[in-house]
Amino acid sequence: MSAPVYTRVALIGLGLIASSMFWAMKRGGLAGEVTGFAKSGASRETARRIGLCDRVCDSVAEAVADADLVVLCVPVGAMGAVAKEIAPHLKVGATVTDVGSVKRDVIDTVGPHLPEGVHFVPAHPLAGTEHSGPESGFAELFDNRWCLLVPVEDSDPDAVAKLRALWEGMGANVDEMDADHHDLVLAVTSHTPHLIAYTMVGVADDLRRVTDSEVIKYSAAGFRDFTRIAASDPTMWRDVFLTNKDATLEILGRFTEELFALQRAIRTGDGEHLHEYFTRTREIRRGIIEAGQDTAAPNFGREAPKA
Amino acid sequence: MSAPVYTRVALIGLGLIASSMFWAMKRGGLAGEVTGFAKSGASRETARRIGLCDRVCDSVAEAVADADLVVLCVPVGAMGAVAKEIAPHLKVGATVTDVGSVKRDVIDTVGPHLPEGVHFVPAHPLAGTEHSGPESGFAELFDNRWCLLVPVEDSDPDAVAKLRALWEGMGANVDEMDADHHDLVLAVTSHTPHLIAYTMVGVADDLRRVTDSEVIKYSAAGFRDFTRIAASDPTMWRDVFLTNKDATLEILGRFTEELFALQRAIRTGDGEHLHEYFTRTREIRRGIIEAGQDTAAPNFGREAPKA
Repeated sequence: MSAPVYTRVALIGLGLIASSMFWAMKRGGLAGEVTGFAKSGASRETARRIGLCDRVCDSVAEAVADADLVVLCVPVGAMGAVAKEIAPHLKVGATVTDVGSVKRDVIDTVGPHLPEGVHFVPAHPLAGTEHSGPESGFAELFDNRWCLLVPVEDSDPDAVAKLRALWEGMGANVDEMDADHHDLVLAVTSHTPHLIAYTMVGVADDLRRVTDSEVIKYSAAGFRDFTRIAASDPTMWRDVFLTNKDATLEILGRFTEELFALQRAIRTGDGEHLHEYFTRTREIRRGIIEAGQDTAAPNFGREAPKA
Repeated sequence: MSAPVYTRVALIGLGLIASSMFWAMKRGGLAGEVTGFAKSGASRETARRIGLCDRVCDSVAEAVADADLVVLCVPVGAMGAVAKEIAPHLKVGATVTDVGSVKRDVIDTVGPHLPEGVHFVPAHPLAGTEHSGPESGFAELFDNRWCLLVPVEDSDPDAVAKLRALWEGMGANVDEMDADHHDLVLAVTSHTPHLIAYTMVGVADDLRRVTDSEVIKYSAAGFRDFTRIAASDPTMWRDVFLTNKDATLEILGRFTEELFALQRAIRTGDGEHLHEYFTRTREIRRGIIEAGQDTAAPNFGREAPKA
């Protein structure tokens, strides 16, 4: 095991991403000491009970004191307030980063609070599950997943390089990207798909009152995959949509345009259009499997649940 | 092992469902002899090579001759033509069933072709994967999944009971339902989700020309789940939408209504509405896991693909 990348790391917010980072840093010996803080007393207690963080602090000031790296792992809508709160307690030369799913908004709300002499390197690991909270993390979450670094104009190259080393040490592949491009790409690959899944599950929920439990009982026909995505953390996702409004609305606009075209093909019985469309989309799946971002096993290789 | 349910079974069409039925019938000793026919010579050859069916026939007439049960496993749009072709060769007292995803249309197009003395018991196993063709089948596909029987007005109760025994022997739970209700429930749990997934993947495909391979590379953020569904067989799905037009368009209408309401909440910054909506949908996931129709493991328990 090589020397730690950072002597002291502070995790602010102790949900799925922070807890996975802790276990991944421990696995790789990447940090000397990891402190942690969560606003909720219950989360801090859980963290202490399961050994999450070397030291769980009862104030954010205590957690960031003397930290070389501070990682903001709170919902995007809370980033600005947390940045303001930690600012007076940051060590000169420290790096502040985050794991938010939206980057322009985080840069605009966090950046202005950070004092001279503190580096700011926004980041976004593209990894997660439908679970949340301090007990949902695991060391392998970032293995072979992408982490996007979104350096700001005056990000120090050494600070960027060090953060890259941390993410690579936690198993991730690292790319750099500018904030607006990030927000558009994520609107396509993540934000709009989540909104659509939430919508479809909401529709089914309304109908459930009509069809009793049939929607749940017969979900294996396709619907259940939507429910996994739509089970993600509500606060996190509310903030994503509120802060990546423009890109999400743009992609949603394209989505409804295409949906209306397919709807029209169904109404007019245009089988050729449907067949051509469905053939094209099949190719993309192949690309994702070849890129190592999913399994080729049928149904994601999940076991048939026992009766 | 008990006595076979049927002495001779004929599978017409040799894709995912038919091949899984063959292996499941073998596993359970449910059929004396299973014959098979596929329109494509290549599929028949593959079937012979991998030992799919006890006897692969080069004509549909030969396959159904003397069969006690004939299972139509072709796309819904081809059911009527196949029924017409097999009709003169059916044994008196035989049962004809199918595995189509739409039931009203199959009843309307198949029923009129079947001669006196032949029983018709439409069915629909709610199981599948994104793979297709004779090599995609496996014996466990129906384990703990639902199979819906949709008896027509004059379906013989003994014929229905026998078909139920076959499906139960292949591992499925069996329910009975009328055709119109079936088509509406499936429009919610399967047809509309598939159309939406196809649409989202199509939008991403358009954008890929702008963002190069980023959509694929960064798909783990949610998008990849949609691509699995959108990789399903194009011909099968074209036929589903063309033949379950009314119910699909009705559910699509509700979907766009809800989507517009969420879109409006994003535009106006109504975080409360979004949070409330996302909290409600989370419950449904819990119901599906408790009903034994999916795994509670994060990300469906899939392994991180190796680099």
